This record gives sequence, structure tokens and C-alpha cells, in this order.
Amino acid sequence: MKKDTEVNLMHGAGGEVMGELLQTLTAFKNNNAGGIGLESLDDGSTFTVGGKTVILTTDSHVVKPIFFPGGDIGRVAVSGTVNDLSVMGARPIALTCAMIIEEGFPIADLEKIVASMDETLGEVGASIITGDTKVVEKGSLDGIVVNTAGVGVIEEGGFLIRDRNLAVGDKIIVSGTLGDHGLAIVSYREGFDLGDQLKSDVAPLWKMIEAAMKAAGNGNIHAMKDPTRGGFAACINEMARKAGVKVVVREDTVPIRESVASAGSLLGIDPLQVANEGKCVMGVAPEAAERVLAALKSHPYGKNAAVIGEVVEGSGVVMQTRIGGERFIEPPLGDPVPRVC
Amino acid sequence: MKKDTEVNLMHGAGGEVMGELLQTLTAFKNNNAGGIGLESLDDGSTFTVGGKTVILTTDSHVVKPIFFPGGDIGRVAVSGTVNDLSVMGARPIALTCAMIIEEGFPIADLEKIVASMDETLGEVGASIITGDTKVVEKGSLDGIVVNTAGVGVIEEGGFLIRDRNLAVGDKIIVSGTLGDHGLAIVSYREGFDLGDQLKSDVAPLWKMIEAAMKAAGNGNIHAMKDPTRGGFAACINEMARKAGVKVVVREDTVPIRESVASAGSLLGIDPLQVANEGKCVMGVAPEAAERVLAALKSHPYGKNAAVIGEVVEGSGVVMQTRIGGERFIEPPLGDPVPRVC
Ligand SMILES: Nc1ncnc2c1ncn2[C@@H]1O[C@H](COP(=O)(O)OP(=O)(O)OP(=O)(O)O)[C@@H](O)[C@H]1O
Ligand SMILES: Nc1ncnc2c1ncn2[C@@H]1O[C@H](COP(=O)(O)OP(=O)(O)OP(=O)(O)O)[C@@H](O)[C@H]1O
Ligand SMILES: [Mg+2]
Ligand SMILES: [Mg+2]
Ligand SMILES: [Mg+2]
Ligand SMILES: [Mg+2]
Ligand SMILES: [Mg+2]
Ligand SMILES: [Mg+2]
Repeated sequence: MKKDTEVNLMHGAGGEVMGELLQTLTAFKNNNAGGIGLESLDDGSTFTVGGKTVILTTDSHVVKPIFFPGGDIGRVAVSGTVNDLSVMGARPIALTCAMIIEEGFPIADLEKIVASMDETLGEVGASIITGDTKVVEKGSLDGIVVNTAGVGVIEEGGFLIRDRNLAVGDKIIVSGTLGDHGLAIVSYREGFDLGDQLKSDVAPLWKMIEAAMKAAGNGNIHAMKDPTRGGFAACINEMARKAGVKVVVREDTVPIRESVASAGSLLGIDPLQVANEGKCVMGVAPEAAERVLAALKSHPYGKNAAVIGEVVEGSGVVMQTRIGGERFIEPPLGDPVPRVC
Repeated sequence: MKKDTEVNLMHGAGGEVMGELLQTLTAFKNNNAGGIGLESLDDGSTFTVGGKTVILTTDSHVVKPIFFPGGDIGRVAVSGTVNDLSVMGARPIALTCAMIIEEGFPIADLEKIVASMDETLGEVGASIITGDTKVVEKGSLDGIVVNTAGVGVIEEGGFLIRDRNLAVGDKIIVSGTLGDHGLAIVSYREGFDLGDQLKSDVAPLWKMIEAAMKAAGNGNIHAMKDPTRGGFAACINEMARKAGVKVVVREDTVPIRESVASAGSLLGIDPLQVANEGKCVMGVAPEAAERVLAALKSHPYGKNAAVIGEVVEGSGVVMQTRIGGERFIEPPLGDPVPRVC
């Protein structure tokens, strides 16, 4: 295959094609500060300060529109960074907020975005302590983009969680319904009137994950990741590939809202391939699975949590379908919804 | 005066007008993680991990064009974040790299940007350990923007430096010639052929600042800041205002390249009001000033360092001119050069 010479939309879609571009973008020699570095391509990276493990992560947000059912760009920005820290087992401490704003942008909208970010921070006890603002000429940016970076720490009694440590026998748990964010965004953009039914799930997960970690006990959540761009399909394939294992999922246990499923079939979009912004996927030691599930379910953001499969020897991700067949859940080339986060 | 309802270019120009917008953008209740927080509006903010002071900062970069005499957007991005950490006295440890890329952007240019970032990191021993990539549709962004956030630590034997602690009697030292970056960018954009004379000063300053701190001895650099957007004029006015002191500058000691001065008068732009990307401004205890100056001068990025004034009681910044007069160096409304960094 000819190598691309220009960036295209699939390069930003969180799937296999993006992986190719990342080879170029992560070609740093200076890529590690003495912990987990860029080479791991995990949700965040680590280094050590005063004997403690510190986690660092970042995401930019270009979601369109900036206000949508269930959330806004500010809530997505804070949640995205909080969640990348949380799925590594880190308590989110301090975030940055960097905004690039198009000339002419309404200041009233900035006020709404800041208020939404602040509310989201308040849910998990994190703070925005520094930021940056650039303004560009009308026409050279589509409204606003928001970048957040975040720092978290592994606490006494907590434990670092990678995305690569699934072990044979692990139960696969998802913290709730899949596909909500991606299908809410695309349906809203397409102008479908689905009443209050299709809403983004965007939410900051630290408190829920903290409870799950406590219930699990030290080290019993073996692997965790947030299924953002590329959805559950990209996420679980990456986890299986990195661990060198096979994952078997039972279709009848996968939580998907009826409204999301309907919108998905209407639009020809698989809910498993679009972004979630308030969910996590875990591989849990079998003896801890019931405790973790109960802890998740007792938190509002985890009430639809479910055990949906398990880890076996082999490779790839297989779905046992409702009608008794089997099919691969393929790693998608990319998320079918652009500008989703 | 009527409050603006829309963002304009001056809101991003690093001067007085930007200060008004920052009131909206920093209106977070969750604004402090137990150290220096957003309320200080310093170059970065702090929190504590394992008994150590950790500094966090961020900057987005929208410089136009992305390749220019003396540097490129990658070198600006790494240097900007390294310098905001360094002027607080922190050794830069780990950076993030978040790129937003317009569909159609040449991958060869990405390779150049990554290589330039890597080289800049190598100069100071910092690493990019995590990142993010978003791609947006052609026409919705002007090429590429790069955000970097960075984490640094105050080392054994080092000391935290604020921008607000100028003290009466301090010597004001600048680490080299002023106005180079802003005038290089604007001259290049205007198509002036000034040969090799006008080059950006963009550079990562940690090693130079580390040497200056060692020469100074604990705490003897009272205040430091990097004179980026808004230039030296914005920087020194902010430092004087925050400390409640007056600064007196002697014009004949201020290092400005002849080519920069000429370009400035040709374009009607004051070199003291445009961005520098490889300079710092310090207030140093008088007994340490000669040692600090010598340390700066012994580093390639500090060879034109100079003592240019001192701190006295009062308020404002005054320039004693070559012809024996006095005039205020006013805090500029904003940097006259848009998209400078
Ligand atoms: N421009 C970049 N420079 C350096 N590293 C990058 C860059 N873009 C992505 N990465 C790295 O590639 C990996 C995948 O990035 P990605 O953004 O897909 O992860 P994520 O944040 O977990 O997902 P999402 O952005 O969809 O929320 C991460 O380890 C990230 O640090
Ligand atoms: N969008 C924002 N949200 C939160 N804080 C912000 C935001 N923009 C700027 N700030 C804060 O305002 C202060 C001034 O920011 P500014 O970007 O001018 O500083 P700087 O990085 O030192 O300068 P430059 O960006 O020109 O290099 C800093 O303390 C910064 O943390
Ligand atoms: Mg992630
Ligand atoms: Mg993410
Ligand atoms: Mg800044
Ligand atoms: Mg600064
Ligand atoms: Mg800066
Ligand atoms: Mg990301």
C-alpha cells in the first residue's frame, strides 16, 4: 500500500489508520521520563516524584457542535482528561485549560463553557490551575478548541492500572451502555428529533472508578481503558492485542440503549464503533468480578454496568451472537463519526 | 466602557485587553490544588507530591507561518513550555504534545515538526511522554496548532521563583536582546528581505537558568518571567504591578539588535512590545547581580545578558532615555503582532 503523504480524517478517528500516523507523531527519542513513556501508547504516561507515581495525560477537543444533548465541549474536555487519568488508577489532581478561540466567538458561550468545566471538576475534586488563551482571525478556526492536560497520582492503597495487562480468566466488565456519545452527536447533527432519548454519556468517572478499585482490592483490576474514539471495538481490540490474549464477548449481555441501537441501524453506524465519553472497560480477576460489578452499579454513572465476556488464550475479539453464532469484533479503521470529541 | 460581547484579536495579544478576557476564563471555583493556583496568573502553577513542589504549565501555539527564520512551531511549542517552567525555577521533566491538524496537511511537515521538537527537548533533557491527535475537515483550521503542557520540579538546592516578588533594590537583568522573535515573524510575513539578520530567538532556557540559579544562591533571584506576548513592556509592568514597586530602566543598557531596531522603526512596532521566545527577565538581589550576569553570559543563550535597571519604591515602569529624559514604559494594550506564537 502506498504511504499517505497528507493527513486525512481517518488519521484522527482513533482506529487502525490513526495508528499509522502515530508512528510519525510519536517518533521522539526523548519519549520517556523514567516510567511508562510514549512507546506504550497507553491512556497516559508516568514518572516519579518524591517516591510517588505521577500520571500525565492530555486531550484536545474539537467536538461539533460545542453544545449538544447531554453535554458540551467543556464537560467533554474535563471528563476526557479525568477519565484517562482514572483508568490508570490515578486520582485526578490538577488540570490545565488551553483555549484557542476564533475572533467573533460569543463571550457568553465562554462563560457557559467555563461554568460547565467547573461543575465537572467539582464532581471529582480536581482543579484547573493554569491555562492559556490564543485568539485567531475569523475564518482560521471553526469556533473554539479546548485542550486539557491533567496530572494525577496513585494514592496510598491505590494501584497503577495499565491497558495491556488482561490475563486469561479475567472477566470483561463495561461500566454502562455503549455508543451513547457518538450516536447522540451524529443524530443531533443530522437533525433527528429523538426527544430526550439520545443523550451523550459524558461524565467524569474518578469517583466510580475509585469505588471499583477499593472493592476489587490491590491489583485485581488487571487492565482498564476508556472506549473513546473508535468505541468499544477499538478499545477491546487494543487491550487484547497488547496483552496477547483473546476476548470472548456475549452479545446478549452487552448493554446498549434501545434508542442508540435504533439510531445506529437508521444511520448504518455500529454503536460498538463510536465514542463513549463516560464509560470504562475493565479486565477483572474472576474472584473480584462480583464485588467490582456491585461497586460500579452503586454509582450513578455505573448503574448499567455488566460483565460482558471473558479473556481466554488466543488472539482477537469474538462475539457470541444472540442466535448462537460467532463473529469477530474487528478493530475499526476509524470512528465513523468525525469531530466527535 | 461597554463590555465586549465577542472575542477579538486583542483578547489574545497578551496585554491589558487580554487581562479582561482572563477574568471570564479564570472564573473557576476549582482553581487551586493546594499551592499556587489560577488566581496568581503566574507562568505556571504548583501542587505538592511526596513532599516535592511540582509545577504545571501549558501553552497552545498558532504561529503563522509554521516555519520561519530561526525556528518553527515545534521549537516554539517545546521552548514555550520549558521556559514557563524554568522561570519558576523548575527543572522541566515531562511534556505533553497535542496536535490538531487540518485535513490535507503534509505528513513530511509533521516529520519536520516532530524532529524539531525532539531536538529542542534534547537540549534540556526533557521528554514528551504523552500526546493527542485530532484531525479536522479542510477549511476548519488553518494548518496545524500544537499544544504542549509541561511538568517540572523544584530540585534539591533549587528554589521556586514567582513573578511577583520584585524587591526594592533588586537589579533588573534581561538574558539577551529584546524583540527578536516578534520582529522576525512580522518582517518575514511582510516579505522583507533582511538577509540572515532577523531571526527568532526561540530557545529552551532551562540550562541557562539553572546556571543562573546556582550562581545566585538560594532565593537570590527574587522574581522571573519570560517576556512572550506583549513583550518586555507587558512583562515588566506585570512584575512591577504584582510586587507594588517601581522599575527604572536605563535605555542605553537595553540590548536590542540593530536589525530589530531598524525593522521596528520601519514597521512602526516597538521592539519592547513584541514577543520574545528565548529570553527571561529577572529581579536579582543586588549582591548577587554580578554573579548571575556572569553565569548568564557564559551560556550561548545569555551572551547578550545585561543589567538594565533597578527596583525602587513607587509604581509603574520608567525609562531614562539616552538624551537624559524620562518616559513611562506603558503596559501595552496588546502585542501588535498577531499569531506570533
Ligand atoms: N501528537 C502526539 N504526540 C505524541 N503522542 C501522541 C500524539 N497523539 C497521540 N499520542 C499517543 O498515542 C496514544 C493514543 O492516543 P489517543 O488520543 O487515541 O488516546 P486516548 O486519549 O486514550 O483516546 P481519545 O483521544 O480518543 O480520548 C496515546 O498513548 C497518546 O499519548
Ligand atoms: N483559558 C484559560 N484558562 C485558565 N487560565 C488561563 C487561561 N488563559 C490564560 N490563563 C492564565 O492566565 C495567565 C496568563 O496567561 P498567558 O498565556 O498570558 O501566560 P504565559 O504562558 O506566561 O504567556 P504566553 O502564552 O504569551 O507564553 C496564566 O497564569 C495562565 O495560567
Ligand atoms: Mg483513553
Ligand atoms: Mg482520551
Ligand atoms: Mg500562555
Ligand atoms: Mg510566561
Ligand atoms: Mg508561555
Ligand atoms: Mg487522546
